[in-house]
Amino acid sequence: MAVFVMDQEYMKLALTLAESAKGQTAPNPMVGAVIVKDGRIVGTGAHLKAGQAHAEVHALKMAGDEANGATMYVTLEPCSHFGRTPPCAKQVITSGVKRVVIAVVDQNPKVAGKGVAMLREAGIEVEVGMCEQEAKELNRAFFHFIKSHQPYVTLKAALTLDGKTATVKGESQWITGPEARLDGHIMRHEHDAILVGIGTVLADNPSLTARLQNGEGRHPTRVILDSHLRIPLNATIVNDQKADTIIFTTNTAPEKHELLLAKPRVHIISLEQLTISNVLQELGKLEIVTLLVEGGARVHGSFVKEHAVHELVQYIAPKLIGGTHATPVIGGEGIARLDQALNLSIVSVNKVGEDLRILSKVRSE
Amino acid sequence: MAVFVMDQEYMKLALTLAESAKGQTAPNPMVGAVIVKDGRIVGTGAHLKAGQAHAEVHALKMAGDEANGATMYVTLEPCSHFGRTPPCAKQVITSGVKRVVIAVVDQNPKVAGKGVAMLREAGIEVEVGMCEQEAKELNRAFFHFIKSHQPYVTLKAALTLDGKTATVKGESQWITGPEARLDGHIMRHEHDAILVGIGTVLADNPSLTARLQNGEGRHPTRVILDSHLRIPLNATIVNDQKADTIIFTTNTAPEKHELLLAKPRVHIISLEQLTISNVLQELGKLEIVTLLVEGGARVHGSFVKEHAVHELVQYIAPKLIGGTHATPVIGGEGIARLDQALNLSIVSVNKVGEDLRILSKVRSE
Repeated sequence: MAVFVMDQEYMKLALTLAESAKGQTAPNPMVGAVIVKDGRIVGTGAHLKAGQAHAEVHALKMAGDEANGATMYVTLEPCSHFGRTPPCAKQVITSGVKRVVIAVVDQNPKVAGKGVAMLREAGIEVEVGMCEQEAKELNRAFFHFIKSHQPYVTLKAALTLDGKTATVKGESQWITGPEARLDGHIMRHEHDAILVGIGTVLADNPSLTARLQNGEGRHPTRVILDSHLRIPLNATIVNDQKADTIIFTTNTAPEKHELLLAKPRVHIISLEQLTISNVLQELGKLEIVTLLVEGGARVHGSFVKEHAVHELVQYIAPKLIGGTHATPVIGGEGIARLDQALNLSIVSVNKVGEDLRILSKVRSE
Repeated sequence: MAVFVMDQEYMKLALTLAESAKGQTAPNPMVGAVIVKDGRIVGTGAHLKAGQAHAEVHALKMAGDEANGATMYVTLEPCSHFGRTPPCAKQVITSGVKRVVIAVVDQNPKVAGKGVAMLREAGIEVEVGMCEQEAKELNRAFFHFIKSHQPYVTLKAALTLDGKTATVKGESQWITGPEARLDGHIMRHEHDAILVGIGTVLADNPSLTARLQNGEGRHPTRVILDSHLRIPLNATIVNDQKADTIIFTTNTAPEKHELLLAKPRVHIISLEQLTISNVLQELGKLEIVTLLVEGGARVHGSFVKEHAVHELVQYIAPKLIGGTHATPVIGGEGIARLDQALNLSIVSVNKVGEDLRILSKVRSE
């Protein structure tokens, strides 16, 4: 057991509390708070869901009168504005907290520093930057979203050691083992939306839900790229009502639109041009902060070609199948020159069952 | 510094001595020996080159009279027959060594145990099996060779995270960084022969030599698969005389044969059918114990389809280039069904510069 006696340890606890709500706070960031008085933790809190109390407020409630004269550790600058809830900075001031330690200021340039200023004006001692890298890393998707108004994109794929997702005959179930597949479902649970091409829908009729070991998880919104509106009316994702399904199309045939829109939780977004950039803009408007792209090869190819990927998660099965015409993990037109390649850095490599899980991040990010 | 006081520690030293000669003992195994008397190392030896003294003999020479009454640690059962040199078991007996600890018996069923029997008959105390797994692992290629009379095959490739070795435009230099490329040259240095398809020769006109940081290494014999004898007469590998070059073909045009055979160190092997299995048999006859297959995609595809691979070394660059028609690391016809895939186990994953080096072994091996 860790003993909490130093600023950094309290902040790490706050970060752990924040991360515990991963996948359930969108479009809000994950935030954790810890209140300490006379070397004793008197309050802890995490932001659990948009519209509900912020981490600071949960912690202050728990602390009650003991907040008076205490130190608060919070992973993100307390807000200074009315959003879905009243400004936290104000409540911190009212509580009598005398010192606030903040991991990172709000990354939205329009509000960054305003919470800190409000606290300081009220005479509270404020320190900023403790565990800043971890805090930025934790909310990298959120910070990307508030700056760009577009989702943070993670491309996910299961492939063989030779980069294939199916044999020359199209056999793909299952490339990877059960442990990797479960891990993939956890990723769905943690993302706001999952995107696939119509080819995947036609080939596999998937449900695209998050199926965890102890039952169903939080299902992501399902996003389908379907220029010609080829989606079958009996496809699982337009009938199971387990999550919203958004179909991007350029097709304007009114009858098929009507038939699809008559189904609960099915939405159609018609675009003049179905480009990755247009799709990401629309998803941003819908407050999709994290997007998981699950293929197939063509869709992956488009995201890679547009450099519209932030992270890559690969489950690599120790198998070789070969074949010039076997489906590659990333298809499409491809990038012509090596100096135009999408460059990443390997962040971690783990064994998941018999398979490898490689997490990489795009370098400029 | 390690202190050597226990059997196992002496054997590990013997294994280290053995491995120091990696790449230079073919067609012989790597062997190391340590002689200990009264808790003091009195002799060490390694087998350095076929035709030269065996490890035991080197160690006995160093020990001189002190071998009398000593213990010998040797990584492989001493030989009992006249080969290129006289039987070691005999020399061990003459030396007066009273105890011999052996990691692994000879894996050739025809001679296994005969060395041990000879020592025991002479009244020497013999123990077998110390560090046996490490010793088997060290000489896995040699053991495969003496059982099958065919080379141990390692497939090596440099690829992107999406399994490509070149862009759609054919650009491939360089996928990986300098550290990975140097590591690849060390692999060449450690192998008896390197094999590529004629496509690679026509595309890159490679030298296929081992170029190490401090100069040239030990160049492997170069093996080219070239059914139609398309190799240009001015290709580097048939002119530089840096190593032997063996061209496998089915073509019988006598003029081109003559022109090629007129070149020093160039050999042609005509086969009725150029199959991987025929090639491996011929290379076995030539005492090629370790074969490094360096592509291209078609050749890799043939080896994988025939399940003629024992190990796989991949240098994976953290890049994505995509493209349905970009060159895949393993091409050819491909394996149709997942249950026919070549199954491997991941042995190790290391960072080499910015790239990953993944070593896998075929599972049934």
